Amino acid sequence: MTNESLKPKPGLKKKFYRVIFLADTHAGKFFDTMLLLAILTSVAIVMMESVQELEVKYHQVLHILEWVFTVLFTIEYIFRVWCSPRPQKYMLSFYGIIDLLCIVPTYLEFLLGGAHYLITIRILRLLRIFRIFKLVPFLHEGKQLTLALQRSRRKIAVFFFFILLLTIVLGSIMYVIETGHNSGFTSIPVSIYWAVVTLTTVGYGDIAPVTPLGQAFSAIIMIMGYAIIAVPTGIVTVEMSRIRAGASVAVRNCPNCHKDTFDDDAEYCKYCGHHL
Amino acid sequence: MTNESLKPKPGLKKKFYRVIFLADTHAGKFFDTMLLLAILTSVAIVMMESVQELEVKYHQVLHILEWVFTVLFTIEYIFRVWCSPRPQKYMLSFYGIIDLLCIVPTYLEFLLGGAHYLITIRILRLLRIFRIFKLVPFLHEGKQLTLALQRSRRKIAVFFFFILLLTIVLGSIMYVIETGHNSGFTSIPVSIYWAVVTLTTVGYGDIAPVTPLGQAFSAIIMIMGYAIIAVPTGIVTVEMSRIRAGASVAVRNCPNCHKDTFDDDAEYCKYCGHHL
Amino acid sequence: MTNESLKPKPGLKKKFYRVIFLADTHAGKFFDTMLLLAILTSVAIVMMESVQELEVKYHQVLHILEWVFTVLFTIEYIFRVWCSPRPQKYMLSFYGIIDLLCIVPTYLEFLLGGAHYLITIRILRLLRIFRIFKLVPFLHEGKQLTLALQRSRRKIAVFFFFILLLTIVLGSIMYVIETGHNSGFTSIPVSIYWAVVTLTTVGYGDIAPVTPLGQAFSAIIMIMGYAIIAVPTGIVTVEMSRIRAGASVAVRNCPNCHKDTFDDDAEYCKYCGHHL
Amino acid sequence: MTNESLKPKPGLKKKFYRVIFLADTHAGKFFDTMLLLAILTSVAIVMMESVQELEVKYHQVLHILEWVFTVLFTIEYIFRVWCSPRPQKYMLSFYGIIDLLCIVPTYLEFLLGGAHYLITIRILRLLRIFRIFKLVPFLHEGKQLTLALQRSRRKIAVFFFFILLLTIVLGSIMYVIETGHNSGFTSIPVSIYWAVVTLTTVGYGDIAPVTPLGQAFSAIIMIMGYAIIAVPTGIVTVEMSRIRAGASVAVRNCPNCHKDTFDDDAEYCKYCGHHL
Repeated sequence: MTNESLKPKPGLKKKFYRVIFLADTHAGKFFDTMLLLAILTSVAIVMMESVQELEVKYHQVLHILEWVFTVLFTIEYIFRVWCSPRPQKYMLSFYGIIDLLCIVPTYLEFLLGGAHYLITIRILRLLRIFRIFKLVPFLHEGKQLTLALQRSRRKIAVFFFFILLLTIVLGSIMYVIETGHNSGFTSIPVSIYWAVVTLTTVGYGDIAPVTPLGQAFSAIIMIMGYAIIAVPTGIVTVEMSRIRAGASVAVRNCPNCHKDTFDDDAEYCKYCGHHL
Repeated sequence: MTNESLKPKPGLKKKFYRVIFLADTHAGKFFDTMLLLAILTSVAIVMMESVQELEVKYHQVLHILEWVFTVLFTIEYIFRVWCSPRPQKYMLSFYGIIDLLCIVPTYLEFLLGGAHYLITIRILRLLRIFRIFKLVPFLHEGKQLTLALQRSRRKIAVFFFFILLLTIVLGSIMYVIETGHNSGFTSIPVSIYWAVVTLTTVGYGDIAPVTPLGQAFSAIIMIMGYAIIAVPTGIVTVEMSRIRAGASVAVRNCPNCHKDTFDDDAEYCKYCGHHL
Repeated sequence: MTNESLKPKPGLKKKFYRVIFLADTHAGKFFDTMLLLAILTSVAIVMMESVQELEVKYHQVLHILEWVFTVLFTIEYIFRVWCSPRPQKYMLSFYGIIDLLCIVPTYLEFLLGGAHYLITIRILRLLRIFRIFKLVPFLHEGKQLTLALQRSRRKIAVFFFFILLLTIVLGSIMYVIETGHNSGFTSIPVSIYWAVVTLTTVGYGDIAPVTPLGQAFSAIIMIMGYAIIAVPTGIVTVEMSRIRAGASVAVRNCPNCHKDTFDDDAEYCKYCGHHL
Repeated sequence: MTNESLKPKPGLKKKFYRVIFLADTHAGKFFDTMLLLAILTSVAIVMMESVQELEVKYHQVLHILEWVFTVLFTIEYIFRVWCSPRPQKYMLSFYGIIDLLCIVPTYLEFLLGGAHYLITIRILRLLRIFRIFKLVPFLHEGKQLTLALQRSRRKIAVFFFFILLLTIVLGSIMYVIETGHNSGFTSIPVSIYWAVVTLTTVGYGDIAPVTPLGQAFSAIIMIMGYAIIAVPTGIVTVEMSRIRAGASVAVRNCPNCHKDTFDDDAEYCKYCGHHL
């Protein structure tokens, strides 16, 4: 923790940067693996602390381990700040803030006393896993999935907006039908919650219609939900199918207009008419 | 509220029409945004009034706000009637009736006393949002979704008719199996409701089979529902895929080679390179 | 009911046959509409009889109406037998048996006393609706759906067989994990029922794991079910897509080898190489 | 059971091998059918033993039958070891171990007393069914399904990893929101279990949010789950569609025109008519 007060040669700083931020060296890969293990263990500890019986039984051990990991992550954070070329930019980046949020709660708990809200923030350490995986070439599949979701983004947004209005209207109607029958439809917001639970086919059963009219109306809602659930599936499937089909051809740029959405069987560019 | 008794120049009437009914001017866009906010706030108030604790605490405030919005919407309604070229046609149109339904309940409640049925009608104000969005060019995505559902309309109708018959038959069989075992299957209509809840995979659990035969039979129903849920998804996906692929414009033949699978954005025939 | 004892001219018999069995005349369509109404009303009566309160209140009316419809259906059955060209063939056909099953329970109830099992058989009257719709040209959509399901038949059978084995194995494992923890997993068959309820995402909640190990294992089962539910959807969507795409081309036979599965863009028969 | 002590001619050993391990003779098919029946019956017995009432009533019969089948399977196992060309390889193969696991529990129970854990292992006899079906040419459909799942393997793995992280984060947030409101969110692991139950739309209802904030947050999770459930369906549908379309043989180029979209059953290039 006093390393940064020494004046290291700039070469050392660069070396550390490469190990900590990149994964193209043996040391870098080893560092990432260790970090991954540390993250998973510390997340497991946070989880175990939330379980009454384990907390009572292993309080001492869990407490010590929590501090060990916090100190480790603090050292790591200081190193990251120290060896990054632009420390300020790192500290204000998404991962920089996550890194800080992952160590602060334990210190705050020590200073202010243990609000469990603070402690659970540490579960965000999980998000740090994504940084490690970002470096792995493995993520080609993930990119295809993300691309399919991204392309369907606007359609899904319109769909969600429609679902929102629909659940508000359906929830209100059910509130009018069921209110006063002791069936859990105590207010319009709660009825909207019920409408979401029903339309998405989750169906907890904590709130369920008891009047014949309410049951008939919910039956209609459910069958409607049947057709509605088909919509996002349709959207994503179509986009995924297009990505998969064009995966090999997307590279084929038109040599004339440089656009690149080709069909497999195209012989002429459909944008400029150039013979391919 | 006395504006309409004055004799305005026809130019003024046209100007108001453009602001209120269209969204192609700055004033029109501002009016729509304000209206949207007013609608959302008034719907939120209706919701809050239905929550016991909020109603008790903020009764006075909610009551006053409700009247403020009702008066505002009344003024808007009068203006719409006044400035529309054919007032009668507007008043009898879908949105004209909705606009009226959104203000009447508050007055009726004042005159007749508060039937909560009346109050909840005000949630229909939400439907007015659709009019505002109709004017926004954003809805291209929505059109594609609607088109896909519209084209699948007849297939989905046949499917729903089949589901209806199926749930009646399955519900009746389960009624015969489970009746008298205190498991909630108290009548055929209730058993049909259960069949819908099960086939759609909602599964509240308020009614669930308890006899071994009933459980075995429901297991078969559920696995059947597995294949059945695939049907609407299949229908919608296929239609969506065709729309996306541009099959909708299949009538556009290439005048040169007479082939006809065009994409929406094609400017040249992809088979012979002819400019369209 | 004594009509059949008279000796009618063969022309009359044919006329009756056309009205009752076909729908190509005005009288035939009128007869079908009346029959449809009679079926729906009589099914509604069976349902209402199963509801305690309605049964108590309207016992007399429901009882009389039931007999009216039974007598009507009996007359119809006698007419069908009488005017069909081969009475025996009709009586042993699927619809002939259904027609008989729809009237017998009421008579049996009168003779033997009211076993509710018998009464509910009358709900099968619903199946008679299908005969009426068979005659309607409307069913083109239904045929496409049926065709898609029929073509996926073997794949879905393999899938169901796999699901069956899977639920037996998963149910048995959960039985071992949860038995003795008072969580509803009282026997292997019940645990298999739970596995079906969970894999199909119905999730009643009448049986739910309570041990940490059981909950962890069910979480894995559910996420597995996520991928599994995709399989029948995929099967049906693919078949439906092929039917939709080939709906117009299926007629294009190869003039050389007479096989008919063509792709839209084929210029040569892929089986014999004949130029199309 | 003493057959193997006799010195049989090598021809006899080969003959037995063919009957037991293959299904290309009448005797082999008969043996497989008998084995299938024995497996199904013995699995049914294990299930029946787990049902309290049946176990009490038919204890004696079930016990005897269990021993009969165990002895039969033991004889079969000895024969399999004896007649396989490389006994050791068979004994260490997947099916060899399963075969052993299916008979050992009954003997262990006899020696050590009846731990029900041991008994349930016998349900694994079910896995032996797969060996029998492996020999049946019927499994073409199964191969297509397996292929579709296999090809989507990596995408589904990425998807599951994402779901895992998502449920941990969502579960932790819900734990913070709902803890202390007596709603079942007693620890982070339990909340993660809830998140899985909700995202997969199973929705038991044994744990359900009770606070307004918790209900609002779960509504968002459910609607999110709507889009997420679309992802595996999309993946599998696309792969299945490609397999069905024959894209799997895309490497087979036409030697004449070098185009490459072939169907499995194509004998001629569909673009230029060249014989393949």
